[in-house]
Amino acid sequence: MARDVRQRMVEGAVRLLAQKGLQATSFSEVLELTGAPRGSLYHHFPGGKDQLVSSALDLAGDRALQLLAEKDGAPAEEIASFFLGMWRTLLVRSQFSAGCAVLAVTVATDSPEQLGHAAAIFRGWRERLAVLLERGGLAPRAAAQFAATLIAASEGAVVLSRAEQSLVPFDLVAGQLLDQVRLMQTAR
Amino acid sequence: MARDVRQRMVEGAVRLLAQKGLQATSFSEVLELTGAPRGSLYHHFPGGKDQLVSSALDLAGDRALQLLAEKDGAPAEEIASFFLGMWRTLLVRSQFSAGCAVLAVTVATDSPEQLGHAAAIFRGWRERLAVLLERGGLAPRAAAQFAATLIAASEGAVVLSRAEQSLVPFDLVAGQLLDQVRLMQTAR
Repeated sequence: MARDVRQRMVEGAVRLLAQKGLQATSFSEVLELTGAPRGSLYHHFPGGKDQLVSSALDLAGDRALQLLAEKDGAPAEEIASFFLGMWRTLLVRSQFSAGCAVLAVTVATDSPEQLGHAAAIFRGWRERLAVLLERGGLAPRAAAQFAATLIAASEGAVVLSRAEQSLVPFDLVAGQLLDQVRLMQTAR
Repeated sequence: MARDVRQRMVEGAVRLLAQKGLQATSFSEVLELTGAPRGSLYHHFPGGKDQLVSSALDLAGDRALQLLAEKDGAPAEEIASFFLGMWRTLLVRSQFSAGCAVLAVTVATDSPEQLGHAAAIFRGWRERLAVLLERGGLAPRAAAQFAATLIAASEGAVVLSRAEQSLVPFDLVAGQLLDQVRLMQTAR
């Protein structure tokens, strides 16, 4: 039950980071969003907001890795399509109000620790995706390049689509990346 | 002279947005950064912070368009390389402390007007870049897709490199995009 409250608060923090950014992710917003009792804050997060944000980064980072694990062994094109689909779903479900919690922290933090934490998550995604793409048929160098591009382009396309409140930019980018991975697979 | 103060304040706001995000871009930070006299704030920006941010968005948007105009008539590969170079220079000069002011507003605003303003700038970049890429040798559909991808991937790659405090992710992405545009040019 206590674990449950903690988990809800971390999930709420991920959602707030993704929708409103780092500064707007405050304890009072998290309480309002999750209905958690006020007393639970410093019980679960004695390190304050930094600890809550850190837990939210871990959750956001792990979720993506867990989803990707489902595609271990699939062809590179299917992995790319699945990864793009995760972001597209986020845009559609949130009606263009949500993006990436890790990006939100990166562009607004003044803490070297938080920045380092975001870096570790991005690097972890990049390395994991490169391994999967290589198993899925890409050459090692191509897999590393395409993994970085898939993450960077998805992150940016989510921002463009949030701004435009439309899937048009996201779908243009997804179309380009899928064309590309098909060419890379046949070129091998 | 008065114009000069206003201009400095808008440039300072672009810099703060790019480095610290929307919430940290306050009048007092702008005053500190630019050394502008306090009285000049409501003289030049009677609409308050929203007006300052709006002017900063216009400046950031126009700057990129002006730089791109230099490459009108160049081959698509050269345009892509130039566009990526603009972002790479920003990372290097700021020692990985700065990103895109328009992205910073998009992920942290709760104002539909500000979001619409960011959207108009992203759309303007996308459309302009597509025209230049088409003139530079890409087919119309390919130009639209690649323009969106070039912007999205640059935006995302800047975020990854800021987090990692390293050019590694940016250069992987740039390598991929340049490989790609070469293939698209020869495929035509």
